[in-house]
Amino acid sequence: MKEKLERLNAIIAEISDIGDATALLGWDQETYMPPGGAETRGQVSATLGRLIHERATSEEMGKLLEELVPWAESELDKDSDDYRIIKNSKRGYDQQMKFPAAMIEERAKLQATGNMAWREARQNNDWKKFEPIMDQWVDFNKRTAELFKPYDHVYDVLLDFFEPNMKTADVKAIFNAIRPKQVELIDAISKKPEVDDSVLHRAYDRATQLKMGEEIASAFGFDFNRGRQDEVHHPFASNLGYGDQRITYRVDENFLNPYIFGTMHETGHGLYEQNVPKEKHRTALYGGTSLAIHESQSRLWENLVGRSRAFWEWYYPTLQKYFPGAVGDVPLDTFYRAINKVKPSLIRVEADEATYNMHIMLRMEIEIGLLEGSMAVKDLPEIWNTNMQEYLGITPPNDSEGVLQDVHWSFGLYGYFSTYALGNLVSAQLWEKIKEAQPNLEDQIRKGEFKNLLDWLRENIHQHGSKYEPQELVQRITGSKINGDAYVKYLQTKYGEIYGL
Amino acid sequence: MKEKLERLNAIIAEISDIGDATALLGWDQETYMPPGGAETRGQVSATLGRLIHERATSEEMGKLLEELVPWAESELDKDSDDYRIIKNSKRGYDQQMKFPAAMIEERAKLQATGNMAWREARQNNDWKKFEPIMDQWVDFNKRTAELFKPYDHVYDVLLDFFEPNMKTADVKAIFNAIRPKQVELIDAISKKPEVDDSVLHRAYDRATQLKMGEEIASAFGFDFNRGRQDEVHHPFASNLGYGDQRITYRVDENFLNPYIFGTMHETGHGLYEQNVPKEKHRTALYGGTSLAIHESQSRLWENLVGRSRAFWEWYYPTLQKYFPGAVGDVPLDTFYRAINKVKPSLIRVEADEATYNMHIMLRMEIEIGLLEGSMAVKDLPEIWNTNMQEYLGITPPNDSEGVLQDVHWSFGLYGYFSTYALGNLVSAQLWEKIKEAQPNLEDQIRKGEFKNLLDWLRENIHQHGSKYEPQELVQRITGSKINGDAYVKYLQTKYGEIYGL
Repeated sequence: MKEKLERLNAIIAEISDIGDATALLGWDQETYMPPGGAETRGQVSATLGRLIHERATSEEMGKLLEELVPWAESELDKDSDDYRIIKNSKRGYDQQMKFPAAMIEERAKLQATGNMAWREARQNNDWKKFEPIMDQWVDFNKRTAELFKPYDHVYDVLLDFFEPNMKTADVKAIFNAIRPKQVELIDAISKKPEVDDSVLHRAYDRATQLKMGEEIASAFGFDFNRGRQDEVHHPFASNLGYGDQRITYRVDENFLNPYIFGTMHETGHGLYEQNVPKEKHRTALYGGTSLAIHESQSRLWENLVGRSRAFWEWYYPTLQKYFPGAVGDVPLDTFYRAINKVKPSLIRVEADEATYNMHIMLRMEIEIGLLEGSMAVKDLPEIWNTNMQEYLGITPPNDSEGVLQDVHWSFGLYGYFSTYALGNLVSAQLWEKIKEAQPNLEDQIRKGEFKNLLDWLRENIHQHGSKYEPQELVQRITGSKINGDAYVKYLQTKYGEIYGL
Repeated sequence: MKEKLERLNAIIAEISDIGDATALLGWDQETYMPPGGAETRGQVSATLGRLIHERATSEEMGKLLEELVPWAESELDKDSDDYRIIKNSKRGYDQQMKFPAAMIEERAKLQATGNMAWREARQNNDWKKFEPIMDQWVDFNKRTAELFKPYDHVYDVLLDFFEPNMKTADVKAIFNAIRPKQVELIDAISKKPEVDDSVLHRAYDRATQLKMGEEIASAFGFDFNRGRQDEVHHPFASNLGYGDQRITYRVDENFLNPYIFGTMHETGHGLYEQNVPKEKHRTALYGGTSLAIHESQSRLWENLVGRSRAFWEWYYPTLQKYFPGAVGDVPLDTFYRAINKVKPSLIRVEADEATYNMHIMLRMEIEIGLLEGSMAVKDLPEIWNTNMQEYLGITPPNDSEGVLQDVHWSFGLYGYFSTYALGNLVSAQLWEKIKEAQPNLEDQIRKGEFKNLLDWLRENIHQHGSKYEPQELVQRITGSKINGDAYVKYLQTKYGEIYGL
């Protein structure tokens, strides 16, 4: 049986190599590829995707798992790497096998045409242009759910692609628990005088921003010998295999936030992947375990660290030295309040910590409504605007800043959004445990020392790669499953102090 | 049979896609990959290489060709694309099939260790460090030749990998014909006063050099929408598939030549690939047909155009505007003589047009001597230095500037060097034909007009991709096979004028 396991690992190693090459194709496409290369790039990516799919669904793979799974269940320690390798492989195999080849092709085509239609629709504020695509995706995702019957809830199937074993009922319960408390907090803040954040909209020259970002990423522990940072339109982090993690940024020379907090965010993703140990590379345990856990890392560095007073007590003098014109005469407290200004806004990716999750709940309700059939695609703009008014007290002036703002649906990514909010919640759950383990955490941050923090994350999260499913991992670390208590408490304390509630 | 041909084309298309991905892996490795990614990159490249090899040597491929080749020979026009596709595929298949898997692995390992040993040996001027590698490569290449028996000359086998159907006897005859004439020219020049080229070694700031290079590459016809230019240690051009050709450069802020002539050179390679038509992509007719023909393009733009008086009559005023401090008060003639200074030198890549081929002949004689057994690896430093003295009248002060200077042997590339000299010869053969077709060629260049020149190259060379073998292509265009007459005449005329011979 050991030989069969070795053979399984060899197949996975090959899939991993092709996956690493595919990641480079994707990274290059967003960073340096000339426009003329787009068509060829599409062909090359499709071919590598097909090679991966062939291997992941081969007859050999099926036969190996048929023998290895019962053996693992009866013979192996459930906490052993080998057991988890077999389990993760089986999960991936089952998922891939359920998709008929025709649907994989259908999806690829719909992604291409869907994304093009979305770009045009958003640019021209023309929902009707995107509506037929959305109809097709709803139909496609309903059919996808059918492939995975039985399920407790139709939405479980889609959620599970991004958060293994997470259930719709669980996420709904979590969101239902935090929603009234977040609404209450937002209401209370709205009654206070609006914070002046004009300091963030001054002149911040590009070269100095880049220097600062590299300094901060390095201080957090990002290893530029095993990674790099490049400019793109829409920042992301990409894992090109062991020793090569790439983060990206965009710069606005008249607004400090996008680059600085974006860099902290992507650094968080990069640190996760950089600290998955080498022996997990080319195995079924490599890489972050889920989108929510990944987002817990990016949000932890961006918000829990990067938007904390302690961090800026350390870094603000440097910022003042770098940008004397913009912040030289601005007191730390004014700056700190500016970067933590809470104000309901239209665009999810620009939302503050207190309002962000509301944007997610809105999207999840729509996704569920569409799948359940209680909402119709044609009504989405109206539903969106009504719910924005209800949740955040504002109504988008047009669909481009409303229902058309995100790229995800154009690619058929349903069930993805909730992981952003779950990541926020997990980041606060982890933070409580870290503070228990390191009571002087804030003092460390105040001195610009992040080594112990990173060590804790490496020890508790990064080193495991994708060995543990997200709920299981959070349970192991915190003693509870994912829930919103810590995050709500964090928001209440932080913003209570800032706004004097 | 049409169906079988379609199936062959489908396999080749897949190989082409994996090859395009491999090209990106290689480009990224030289441009942006962080050092920590090297080991992973090696694994990923090896896996894609294996996938290509599997497809190129599959049983299916063998069976298809077994039926298609006789059909093509009896039914197809030998000038048709289909005939050439089958012929090129058969050639590639036969080549790949002759290598046992063990030798492919041996080669990959020897390339890795060989290149590392060479880097160390060159850095420390320590031939003994590299000698055992060289021994292994000679043995490997002898065994490679055995696989391809019968042959007229043992060296034919190696040459044929780079120049399909080129024979050692032909290359020797060509080189024997030009050597005495080049020696005579170099001797005559050496008796004239040495040209002062200090103007080239002044301060040329980086940003302005880059601007100038992009301007010149664009003027030549390089399409930056379908390509780009990046910085590397050792410049090269890489074809990532239709619509995506990447050229590279290095900059010396105190020496004008490396960037400006390097850019013209790589632009020449890039223009070749950019003008192979789209319908040839993902077929056995895509890409340049051989290294010598490729080099004929790069050297044509670098030397026949870029080191011509006509070119600088057009561009020198711009250069003076860009670098007033360096060339503002330097007459065009002084500059023109400086960039065409002839002086025997140690390093091949820095050699002028008149001495360059001598460096190649030296290397080819050594490669042949080693394979024939008339030279021993351990004697190479002495042989190198003796021959340098004989050919160019200088002796390297150390092996790093002598026998250890080139990377090629460390990778096992024997038979490669001669293509550089052949490229020089072909560039002059083509130039004669172009001048016949466009008697006002120099006037065009003098006005910075390169469209007709590029059109001629596209029409006669680029559009064919790899449809024609190099000798066949040159014969079609010029009426003769590759020979040195045009190049020698070109050298004699140009340098006769410059040096007043």
